[in-house]
Amino acid sequence: MKNASTHPVSARGPVDHEVRDQVVAAATEHFSRYGYEKTTVSDLAKAIGFSKAYIYKFFESKQAIGEMICANCLREIEAEVRVAIAETDLPPEKLRRMFKAITQASLRLFTQDRKLYEIAASAATERWQVVQTYEEHIQKMLEEILLAGRQTGDFERKTPLDETALAIYLVMRPYLNPLLLQHSYGFNPEAPMHLSSLVLRSLSP
Amino acid sequence: MKNASTHPVSARGPVDHEVRDQVVAAATEHFSRYGYEKTTVSDLAKAIGFSKAYIYKFFESKQAIGEMICANCLREIEAEVRVAIAETDLPPEKLRRMFKAITQASLRLFTQDRKLYEIAASAATERWQVVQTYEEHIQKMLEEILLAGRQTGDFERKTPLDETALAIYLVMRPYLNPLLLQHSYGFNPEAPMHLSSLVLRSLSP
Repeated sequence: MKNASTHPVSARGPVDHEVRDQVVAAATEHFSRYGYEKTTVSDLAKAIGFSKAYIYKFFESKQAIGEMICANCLREIEAEVRVAIAETDLPPEKLRRMFKAITQASLRLFTQDRKLYEIAASAATERWQVVQTYEEHIQKMLEEILLAGRQTGDFERKTPLDETALAIYLVMRPYLNPLLLQHSYGFNPEAPMHLSSLVLRSLSP
Repeated sequence: MKNASTHPVSARGPVDHEVRDQVVAAATEHFSRYGYEKTTVSDLAKAIGFSKAYIYKFFESKQAIGEMICANCLREIEAEVRVAIAETDLPPEKLRRMFKAITQASLRLFTQDRKLYEIAASAATERWQVVQTYEEHIQKMLEEILLAGRQTGDFERKTPLDETALAIYLVMRPYLNPLLLQHSYGFNPEAPMHLSSLVLRSLSP
């Protein structure tokens, strides 16, 4: 990796992408050991063996690196949730699994590592773009399940789709947002189960 | 008030109660100005003109004073919620008003005063007895509304009452718990309205 700084790569194309990934991988490890808030881009450059100027060629700020780390983390959660949803064809069961999977994946990623939690908490507090995109994806997934359930006749069709998806998202939010999750799940680990049941009752035709 | 320390009162009966109220009133004002965490019982005694020993006759610790302040605050919220519920005879409307009133009262009391928020946050984090009692009262209020709605035929009767009340409490919790409220309400001020509608759909017979 070190020779990357002596043999600059093109600023476009797949090679660019690879270097960004290298910086992000090294930064993830570094932040998870020394924390996100306290580390500067200079510290990071020194630790991973790139020059500071070289890092600034690919990321305009520390937050830009944090955003990519956060995006990777959120993409991982999304992937796990998609797998859980795909495991069944029954829309009500999809919804139950989605709620369970999103809580489990969020808990694991946000609490296994206090230092990564720090990045996630900054992202959530400052509402970084990656967080907004993630929220949109989760609501989109909910809409897809709702549509499927309306087609099978499992779910009611009177309430506007976007309104229903938003309300369910608001029920789930304390179990997927890092700032809320610790206070929500800690209060009652069976909460996602109870809430899924309530949501499903609200959807009955 | 000062002569209370030179003329000790009986340790029982209404007079005891009055002195406790005096200490709590003075402590509320003092904490709201100088903060709860940083103030010691000695600071407090000095500021309100009682001896430290005298305060310890009535409260075994600073937390005991904090608990009474917190209890007063929670009692105020409860009273406002009861008024809001009593304003209508229709159970679905009672539920809507309860959700709205509890959010508004909690927001006002926990956010109007950063220093009182500090006590409320300690109480919620450490799950003081007053907080547990409050949670029980709120769930009891919910059960009463649910029972009324089951009698009028507005609400379904299949789901066990305690399970339904707990699930609705879990939906409301991010809007009444001081640790969660700021992150919940800030995200979407219309959330309580959307969530009330979802809860009411879940209760339809």
